[in-house]
Amino acid sequence: MGPHPAVAAIRLAVRRVLHDILTEQTTEPNSDFPSHERLSPPLVFVACSGGADSMALASALAFEAPKLGIRAGGITIDHGLQTGSDQRADEVVERLSELGLDPVASVAVSVGRAGGPEAAARDARYAALDAAAERYGATAVLLGHTRDDQAETVLLGLARGSGIRSLSGMAAVSGAGGRYRRPFLHIDRQTARKACMVQSLPVWDDPHNADPAYTRSRLRHEGLPALEKALGKGVVEALARTAQLSRDDADALDAWAGQAETSVRDARGLLECAKLYALPPAVRRRILRRAAIEAGAPAGSLFARHIEEVDRLITGWRGQGAINLPGKVVAQRQGGRLVIRQG
Amino acid sequence: MGPHPAVAAIRLAVRRVLHDILTEQTTEPNSDFPSHERLSPPLVFVACSGGADSMALASALAFEAPKLGIRAGGITIDHGLQTGSDQRADEVVERLSELGLDPVASVAVSVGRAGGPEAAARDARYAALDAAAERYGATAVLLGHTRDDQAETVLLGLARGSGIRSLSGMAAVSGAGGRYRRPFLHIDRQTARKACMVQSLPVWDDPHNADPAYTRSRLRHEGLPALEKALGKGVVEALARTAQLSRDDADALDAWAGQAETSVRDARGLLECAKLYALPPAVRRRILRRAAIEAGAPAGSLFARHIEEVDRLITGWRGQGAINLPGKVVAQRQGGRLVIRQG
Repeated sequence: MGPHPAVAAIRLAVRRVLHDILTEQTTEPNSDFPSHERLSPPLVFVACSGGADSMALASALAFEAPKLGIRAGGITIDHGLQTGSDQRADEVVERLSELGLDPVASVAVSVGRAGGPEAAARDARYAALDAAAERYGATAVLLGHTRDDQAETVLLGLARGSGIRSLSGMAAVSGAGGRYRRPFLHIDRQTARKACMVQSLPVWDDPHNADPAYTRSRLRHEGLPALEKALGKGVVEALARTAQLSRDDADALDAWAGQAETSVRDARGLLECAKLYALPPAVRRRILRRAAIEAGAPAGSLFARHIEEVDRLITGWRGQGAINLPGKVVAQRQGGRLVIRQG
Repeated sequence: MGPHPAVAAIRLAVRRVLHDILTEQTTEPNSDFPSHERLSPPLVFVACSGGADSMALASALAFEAPKLGIRAGGITIDHGLQTGSDQRADEVVERLSELGLDPVASVAVSVGRAGGPEAAARDARYAALDAAAERYGATAVLLGHTRDDQAETVLLGLARGSGIRSLSGMAAVSGAGGRYRRPFLHIDRQTARKACMVQSLPVWDDPHNADPAYTRSRLRHEGLPALEKALGKGVVEALARTAQLSRDDADALDAWAGQAETSVRDARGLLECAKLYALPPAVRRRILRRAAIEAGAPAGSLFARHIEEVDRLITGWRGQGAINLPGKVVAQRQGGRLVIRQG
């Protein structure tokens, strides 16, 4: 008798990602060493909070990695945001070791305040995971984000209203050199939970996940269920598919803008208004955004309405004055050229 | 003392659209008549249900049109879905006449069942509006869709999960020759309602709008409020902005796919797999979708997963067989070519 369908599903998802990692390693063109010099087997970490998603991921990694000659390790981050979080981290370390993962480490971080509590915790977490991956020479770090997490991320991006890049959710592969992998982006939270249950894995429910002070928590427990009630059960899947399609579309348009940018600059490198005008609005606005960022505007403070205003220097020219952008960047039209620079 | 801000806002929105219509008329390159032969002033209709949005629109049209030398008319559609709907339509006609609109007409339609009750009513409505516009020689028909309607439309598109085109909501200009105009896409429902109130215009609340049997009604009364509660009050505006950005992006990518398509066909007009492979996925999948529709697959039944499967003939070729698409269309790889035709 084979494993329970939920366990089979999570193992298959991890197996595919491990295959990808091995394939990339052997075909890596910029490798510092010829492949026969790589004597030690690659090390793949799982980042584990002790919750159902990442415990399921840890169990699947522990099962699949040895069959592919991969060493499987585990890292848990102690955010220090709740009393007893250090003991909690020790428990997770113990559970990961019991699964057969080795090495297993707990890393304590100190969470700042920049960008709000969720962003600050995330920044501290990734910095610690990066450092741990470097220290141990890990090839990859697996993250337990599920399709439900992806759907929430798309809605959070939708609320920003800043275009399709913010609808593209989390990438299956991200970070320096593709370090971070998310094998569960097509697995739903319920499957991960079920896989833990049938494998008798103890899981820990982070109280933050149910705390209505957090936007993501409100979305999970109120926003998404209401949306499902109105639109039907397929909403989570539709949102996850939207993420993938939006990501591909945003990539293609960014590539187009990158190519077009060189063709709309004059000999001095200034943007020619007539040539910008001839481009599709979607491409032109991306070029304007890139130019503003290049001139020193912080990407995070540059909103669609800023770019629209700069765009009107091209499409609705009636002699308007200079436009102030974040980061003390100024955009103005001068003699058929668009000049964007820090003022 | 000027008008109430809500009234000023709706009038400004209508004035801008009427200006656009006049500008297009005088610069229309394909006009059948030289402009000096156009003796009669242009006629612009408002499509009015008697609800707050379209009554506000009718009042603004009645106020602005004469100042620009435009004739303002009104049409109301009797869908015949409720008892007494004919009397209701007569009342709307009377109210539109009281506003000074002329001509004013009520058109009874019979609503079929194709595509569900909402789609069937919409199809019947637009067919009747088209016919009325032709009959009276109207230059444009104004529709009262607000920013809130736009936000709902984006969420309905999101639920389909079929990519950014379905996120692009309703166009400000649509229909044959740009007949339909939506001046209120940036005006919120509350402003339209307020404008009716301060002008003492009687409005009629369609019971369909509050009927939870309708997806849009559930979204309006439950889904969107819950999303606003989780994500903040800016959600409606963010969704409306997403619509505009997605529309521009989808237009640019469709244009790219249209241009690229000719370059990936061989002398016999067959799609070359190697050339398709070299394109960005977003462009390649649009070409595959166009080819499937051209071969006879109905656009409405062709989902993202169909196109993904065809795409794997290009990106994940391992000798797989023919792929069946809706409309009895078959896609298969033959000698480095992709053949898509009705089987």
